[in-house]
Amino acid sequence: MTLTLVSQSKHFGGLLTKYTHVSAVNQCTMTFNVFLPKTAAEHQTKVPVLYCLGGLTSTEDNFAQKAGAASRAAQYGLALVFPDTSPRGVDFAEAGAREDIGYSAGFYLNATQAPWNKNWKMYDYISKELPQVLSANLPIDISRSSITGHSMGGHGALTIFLKNQTAYKSVSAFAPILHMTKANWGRFALPKYLGDDESTWKEYDSIELFKLHHAQKTLRTDINVLIDQGTGDKFLKDNLHTEDLIEFVKKEGLENQFTIRYQDGYDHGYFFISTFANDHVDHHAKALGLTLSH
Amino acid sequence: MTLTLVSQSKHFGGLLTKYTHVSAVNQCTMTFNVFLPKTAAEHQTKVPVLYCLGGLTSTEDNFAQKAGAASRAAQYGLALVFPDTSPRGVDFAEAGAREDIGYSAGFYLNATQAPWNKNWKMYDYISKELPQVLSANLPIDISRSSITGHSMGGHGALTIFLKNQTAYKSVSAFAPILHMTKANWGRFALPKYLGDDESTWKEYDSIELFKLHHAQKTLRTDINVLIDQGTGDKFLKDNLHTEDLIEFVKKEGLENQFTIRYQDGYDHGYFFISTFANDHVDHHAKALGLTLSH
Repeated sequence: MTLTLVSQSKHFGGLLTKYTHVSAVNQCTMTFNVFLPKTAAEHQTKVPVLYCLGGLTSTEDNFAQKAGAASRAAQYGLALVFPDTSPRGVDFAEAGAREDIGYSAGFYLNATQAPWNKNWKMYDYISKELPQVLSANLPIDISRSSITGHSMGGHGALTIFLKNQTAYKSVSAFAPILHMTKANWGRFALPKYLGDDESTWKEYDSIELFKLHHAQKTLRTDINVLIDQGTGDKFLKDNLHTEDLIEFVKKEGLENQFTIRYQDGYDHGYFFISTFANDHVDHHAKALGLTLSH
Repeated sequence: MTLTLVSQSKHFGGLLTKYTHVSAVNQCTMTFNVFLPKTAAEHQTKVPVLYCLGGLTSTEDNFAQKAGAASRAAQYGLALVFPDTSPRGVDFAEAGAREDIGYSAGFYLNATQAPWNKNWKMYDYISKELPQVLSANLPIDISRSSITGHSMGGHGALTIFLKNQTAYKSVSAFAPILHMTKANWGRFALPKYLGDDESTWKEYDSIELFKLHHAQKTLRTDINVLIDQGTGDKFLKDNLHTEDLIEFVKKEGLENQFTIRYQDGYDHGYFFISTFANDHVDHHAKALGLTLSH
């Protein structure tokens, strides 16, 4: 569980550091960036953390470099963790052949099918191993964690939250894939990662998990789920399905537990994310009990 | 002077657009990004502009995607222009052979030596042609212009300002190459672009231009030059030479005309730039008579 420092830059009074470490669950070397605010970077004071999960084609760098979230996080004294989006460096060619499966396309699930089932355990990595790695090595208090993400990473944030509702104080997403079992990306990747039995796909589908937990009365009612979705997003119709979540929320009368915002004209990229990043940091800071004091 | 739209994203209520156009001075197709705040994007109201010049290895994208300047610019109603850093697509191999000359290494000068002298006219492009292109095609009031840049682009901002002092309301730079005739980068590129006569190099050297205009009493005394420089910048010693400008300022008693800030521990990258981007936007907005009202 030791970390290897790759690079480090001072950023908004704190430190943005890239580390690698050997992942037991993914059986490869994983990379992440972490932003520690000044109080943690200089004085080792333990701070809460917001996980920021990237989308397809991303690495640990995209969200860290382009979302502009560290400015506000620094003011709150909040750490940000930007994990890589898949295992890397495995020895079979399929891993690097396409943009929608393999490298940068981990979909935050545990694969059960060869050749993916040896390394592609991103669900366990993000929800179990990475928090332990952070806790053991950095001034991060993982008992105060929140989670967000973009697109595939929004899917990751929501499904990981839904399967571990007491582990996170809050959840949000930018343009998430909400209905993986219906999305083109999901219908391509899920059979390869999980096999043809569609019943196994539902545990990695946000809409299905919301429905399940609501029906079982195991959906937390004390948190508000924040989702921003651009109306100019070319993936909205075939891959994101925001309307399906809105329909569920209306049908079940859960309006008080969701803030789902269509943002007029915004697309799927980081010029959209950066526009609303402060709103999401504010959302999580409030749930984590942080105030703008730094 | 017509523009071809390449891509467009809504960003902080305005629009971030990538355009190409045929450049007469560079004799090739040039690309730039422009951020128009809401009032200009939606209502075609003419707004002031801040030119943001990139450094070595950059294109028009780096500053636009990573500096985080649009948030504050949107609040002021200020346009940002992110030009590419060199001509592209020329027919000689030297242009793409190295990172310190040719592509992404225009150094904001007019080359006089073959093979560069046909296309490498970045000084004329930034100071003359691009403003005309913007004025003819976009709701930008080029009579209210300011200029900033990073590293090579900081050198560009300062030298272009110094040679055109009435064309800009203000100037600033992040980690600029201040003493090109002394910098390793300058001593490599200048003979190739300008020939071996070192006297011709001085017109693209900020320190030399500051000295010249101060001696001639042609240095504007009504503006304050803002420079941020990280103390952890690995290029400081051999390429940036901030200390030479500080020495000149002290010797000539010009402290009221310069704000030169050493930023403790910051390096040369965009995690440094983004930390201080708002300060620079504020600096230019003040000179342009803008207030935080949007």
